[in-house]
Amino acid sequence: MPAQEQHSDILIVGSVAFDSIEAKTGSVDRALGGSAIFASMAASYFASPRLVAVVGEDFEQGHFELLGSRGIDASGIKVVAGGRTFHWKGRYRDNMQDRDTLSTELNVFEGFDPVLPEAFRWSSHLFLGNIDPKLQAKVLDQVTDPRFVGMDTMNFWITDASAELGKVLERVDVLFINDEESRQLTGERQVANAARAILGMGPRYVVIKRGEYGALLFAADMCLFVPAVLLPRVVDPTGAGDAFAGGFMGFVSSAAAIDRKTLARALRAGGAMASFAVEQFSVGGLVGLDRSAIDGRVRMLDSMCASE
Amino acid sequence: MPAQEQHSDILIVGSVAFDSIEAKTGSVDRALGGSAIFASMAASYFASPRLVAVVGEDFEQGHFELLGSRGIDASGIKVVAGGRTFHWKGRYRDNMQDRDTLSTELNVFEGFDPVLPEAFRWSSHLFLGNIDPKLQAKVLDQVTDPRFVGMDTMNFWITDASAELGKVLERVDVLFINDEESRQLTGERQVANAARAILGMGPRYVVIKRGEYGALLFAADMCLFVPAVLLPRVVDPTGAGDAFAGGFMGFVSSAAAIDRKTLARALRAGGAMASFAVEQFSVGGLVGLDRSAIDGRVRMLDSMCASE
Repeated sequence: MPAQEQHSDILIVGSVAFDSIEAKTGSVDRALGGSAIFASMAASYFASPRLVAVVGEDFEQGHFELLGSRGIDASGIKVVAGGRTFHWKGRYRDNMQDRDTLSTELNVFEGFDPVLPEAFRWSSHLFLGNIDPKLQAKVLDQVTDPRFVGMDTMNFWITDASAELGKVLERVDVLFINDEESRQLTGERQVANAARAILGMGPRYVVIKRGEYGALLFAADMCLFVPAVLLPRVVDPTGAGDAFAGGFMGFVSSAAAIDRKTLARALRAGGAMASFAVEQFSVGGLVGLDRSAIDGRVRMLDSMCASE
Repeated sequence: MPAQEQHSDILIVGSVAFDSIEAKTGSVDRALGGSAIFASMAASYFASPRLVAVVGEDFEQGHFELLGSRGIDASGIKVVAGGRTFHWKGRYRDNMQDRDTLSTELNVFEGFDPVLPEAFRWSSHLFLGNIDPKLQAKVLDQVTDPRFVGMDTMNFWITDASAELGKVLERVDVLFINDEESRQLTGERQVANAARAILGMGPRYVVIKRGEYGALLFAADMCLFVPAVLLPRVVDPTGAGDAFAGGFMGFVSSAAAIDRKTLARALRAGGAMASFAVEQFSVGGLVGLDRSAIDGRVRMLDSMCASE
């Protein structure tokens, strides 16, 4: 076994963004966000994530320090001189689910060309956040024999890059996708049919995210469910799906084996991290948690599901 | 203990209707339906329901025979001479969730005045289907010291009879209500807050029905969840909520004690019966089941929820 290989390494690739958000619960301007940030912050409670992303010169030292404080290796973040970080502006409707994009400035993210630091090429676990499937494939090409690969995607890639998306799907172990996107990807209305169709596209597992209704995991011979943690107040749902995936992948990367029990526990870890993420704007909910807070939410989910 | 009292008696009061339904899955004309029918058919697999309802002369002998074949005591069904049975016409949209009412002929249901047969006054368990809260109260007045009372309601009563509804809520053990109605009743968006507000109105338990996303049960110190059985095809969602309540109430009425385990199992019984109900038009899915089919679906739900 090469010296570089560490079994709980988890490489996370995706977007880093500044999010400007308006909601009935308040607003933030240029707050830290992006799929890679939410996923790695969530994963950091279970493993030591390595982050690959691109930012502009406006990405501050304080942001690097925040990642460092969570044990996230940010040496794979490329800072583009003279560039500006991806900036998304959006407004949530009163149901705190639907949202309207007010503006999207891709900035340096438009030219994102993930090149992995040498040490990152030996990563046992890999999470491909929601980026162009061509880039997801390029990352996969650079990782040597990963043990477990997860990926996320979104409606834009399903409609505009379906061939490329299909090729990546053949190479991953688990796809994270929401209800609506699963219908879009497969044409199937019923979630069990959509899941079966997705499993036919390559992944061994598919996790269907259903927001406040929880999440389902399907394999050929398995179906697992976890409800969402019930919260008195949702402040900002941005990044919930990424935090879910990060918690799930982080948990899996720390597990000795990938079996039914690990997957059921990983769903609960994902559900717990998503619940923390939505309680505050930006990554506020994913900072300064301790293990007992996370375990408390996992126990809450266990208790809700118990049959006696 | 009076001779009349039998501990697994469950009295079910509600509507009997003929449903004419159009959906992308097919259509039916004047098929047997109504809250009392779906609930009692579902409950009949766990207990011996007693039915109180009103029908017209167009209610056929075959309908009585169907109820009899399920062990349902239909002696509380009043047949109005010269009258016609409640008739609802509706059309489901392509998502098989939203529906438009094409016509509602209340017919004899408009004059429904539930008077219980003497023997029914001693019923240990009572399910008040979705009818005018004034009538629900009138039924409650006629039952001697019931051990466990469940009720359903709908948006119409929440907006147009909230005072009467509030009075009934103070007298029942469990309210069955869907997500949207729970928000309407309480003004709370988050389900946990809505549930807490409802518990403050009187019932000891509230079951929040979420259709294909399952159901939640809340008590002051308890929150239980059951997902929906995942089906490859939904033919007709009409009556799913009533079948859920019927399965739940039937299970509870057959249990020795009402504790956490009983409630968790009752949620699964409800979920199983709802899943059978939606697989066919009318009560087709609730006829001719055997215990092993029901147990199979309950095990499916257990398996989905298992944490290892």
